[in-house]
Amino acid sequence: MPDQPPLLDRLAIRHPIIQAPMAGGATTPALVAAVSEAGGLGMLGAGLMAPAAIAQAIAEIRRLTSRPFGVNLFVPEVKPAERDGPAIDAMIAVLAPWYAELRTEAPPRPVPPPPDFEAQAEVILAARVDVFSFTFGVPDAVLLRAFRDGGAVVIGTATTVAEGLILTEAGVDAVVAQGSEAGGHRGTFAGPFEPALVGTMALVPQMAAVLELPVIAAGGIMDGRGIAAARVLGAAAVQLGTAFLATMESGIHPMYKQELLNATDDATAVTRAFTGRPARGIRNPLMATIEQAGTPIPDYPVQAALTAPIRRAATRWGRTDAMALWAGQGAGRARALPAAALMEALVKEAADATPTAIGRSA
Amino acid sequence: MPDQPPLLDRLAIRHPIIQAPMAGGATTPALVAAVSEAGGLGMLGAGLMAPAAIAQAIAEIRRLTSRPFGVNLFVPEVKPAERDGPAIDAMIAVLAPWYAELRTEAPPRPVPPPPDFEAQAEVILAARVDVFSFTFGVPDAVLLRAFRDGGAVVIGTATTVAEGLILTEAGVDAVVAQGSEAGGHRGTFAGPFEPALVGTMALVPQMAAVLELPVIAAGGIMDGRGIAAARVLGAAAVQLGTAFLATMESGIHPMYKQELLNATDDATAVTRAFTGRPARGIRNPLMATIEQAGTPIPDYPVQAALTAPIRRAATRWGRTDAMALWAGQGAGRARALPAAALMEALVKEAADATPTAIGRSA
Repeated sequence: MPDQPPLLDRLAIRHPIIQAPMAGGATTPALVAAVSEAGGLGMLGAGLMAPAAIAQAIAEIRRLTSRPFGVNLFVPEVKPAERDGPAIDAMIAVLAPWYAELRTEAPPRPVPPPPDFEAQAEVILAARVDVFSFTFGVPDAVLLRAFRDGGAVVIGTATTVAEGLILTEAGVDAVVAQGSEAGGHRGTFAGPFEPALVGTMALVPQMAAVLELPVIAAGGIMDGRGIAAARVLGAAAVQLGTAFLATMESGIHPMYKQELLNATDDATAVTRAFTGRPARGIRNPLMATIEQAGTPIPDYPVQAALTAPIRRAATRWGRTDAMALWAGQGAGRARALPAAALMEALVKEAADATPTAIGRSA
Repeated sequence: MPDQPPLLDRLAIRHPIIQAPMAGGATTPALVAAVSEAGGLGMLGAGLMAPAAIAQAIAEIRRLTSRPFGVNLFVPEVKPAERDGPAIDAMIAVLAPWYAELRTEAPPRPVPPPPDFEAQAEVILAARVDVFSFTFGVPDAVLLRAFRDGGAVVIGTATTVAEGLILTEAGVDAVVAQGSEAGGHRGTFAGPFEPALVGTMALVPQMAAVLELPVIAAGGIMDGRGIAAARVLGAAAVQLGTAFLATMESGIHPMYKQELLNATDDATAVTRAFTGRPARGIRNPLMATIEQAGTPIPDYPVQAALTAPIRRAATRWGRTDAMALWAGQGAGRARALPAAALMEALVKEAADATPTAIGRSA
């Protein structure tokens, strides 16, 4: 990538470390601001937030830092999912014991839609945030041009080289290469998700070889050695999610944090069970119930709405058996530190990491 | 790993690069010898070879090089698969159009067993090869001790930290950490294979943090940058399969080599279709026929015996639609070079690879 734009210069961040924009409350303003203050790029995962809540979070981040940060949205489905009908009845029947056990109930019918994407984007555009990133597809060209005209760096998410090329064509400034190790939702948008589960070690070099844009490596990176390794593979920057999930400022439940720290390398699975979209999380009883029921899982965002009352109640009760425990395959190496301390450790470890000399004599 | 044994010194190889032992004819004596001559470690994939053929291949390798090399075997199933019965009838019916089209026929019944493991091991032991490696489990303690007493370095294959610990307990000298990117058979032996599909970026650091033995990284490594990245992650050495499959000396069909070079990052799948054991290969029509039939796939090695006549005929006819096109997720970056030239490139690239400085000012 000899002629790649100087991503770090444009973003005016000291370290090529992006805190992944995790939707669902993990990326508190305190976390986003702490990462940006420490010289990385904090990102608000706003995909599930109402427009007014996004505006409020942005204002709060700005009270905490004057450094650049970003906001991420979920690109809506081209064909909206059916929000009522027998398939939804069937899934509610599967979930009924969980609604009962957690003293909650199924959502009203038709299932409420997610926040309006256009309205979310308008808030972010009006706030003139430094970075706009997105997942699950490509927003329309007019919106992307508006962000770029407003001075934002625009970052898309790809799980294959083919998706990276679609994003390049759409005019993004950089592409997140999401390896199969990554926790949370798969960004896959141009085909089935199974073949697009490409490991970071294989994905980043192929993406870097073909794309003429900076590639941001994501998936399985938990420490400075992972950062250095990703850079060796051709990444201009890295994006870490699970590593920041365990920090003090992360908004997840303390018992979910504990599950991360205890996770073995084979603790996770990619499942449509929680939201209708494939996402990687620690296997637990709610996931097993839904997967083993044999009932077709409604598409995103309907399945997310059906499980939301259970997941919310599980968080109130501290019941990790019924949360969505999003996590990458490196979760067990997460560290329960303040975000600033984690950033400091990452930077130091990456600086210390050099490949052991290849020759025997060294 | 402060007190790890000096793996390279014990093996007396110049470069920490192991050519993966791929069964099925890829690892010709010419390939094994060329890699060892170039300062790496050539490995004969002998899992499917009759004892006499193994002895002959070892003799041939020794005519070509006096450097160290190794031999790999498949540890047999604890509970041998049923070699006759209605499930086998059903699979033969699924395969019938392929037998017919490729002018071959189903194997005799009961399905012939694979070569005898004890007899294979005896040949290797008698030949006093430098390295004995194995996949699919753990050989019995008496056999492992015999190899170690004979001076061989013993290497096992693990896909999770838990498997790495089992191998450590069994007394191996080093553990291959096989990431999910890797082509060919999954080494998984201590549980279901799906959760054990852990990406190299996540697997190697976790393995290196827990095991007190040298970790050999495998999966998705196609060039010297991949080697340097794996070393940064904590690997003492690397094992490359797909990269060597495309070399001149590799025994695979020229059209299979072409499929490797043309592969996209999302071209492969992990399937039980060809052999009854999960293995990663380029998706093709024979794989699709078997997977989509909805007929239960017999266990290894029975399914391997049922598809063998088709795969053999496909190789005779140059029909890649009916071969098992084992390949890792980095296949598209393979290079059609002589093995010595590939080794030279790998060593040079790895020596040149340094992580780009982490700080913005650099």
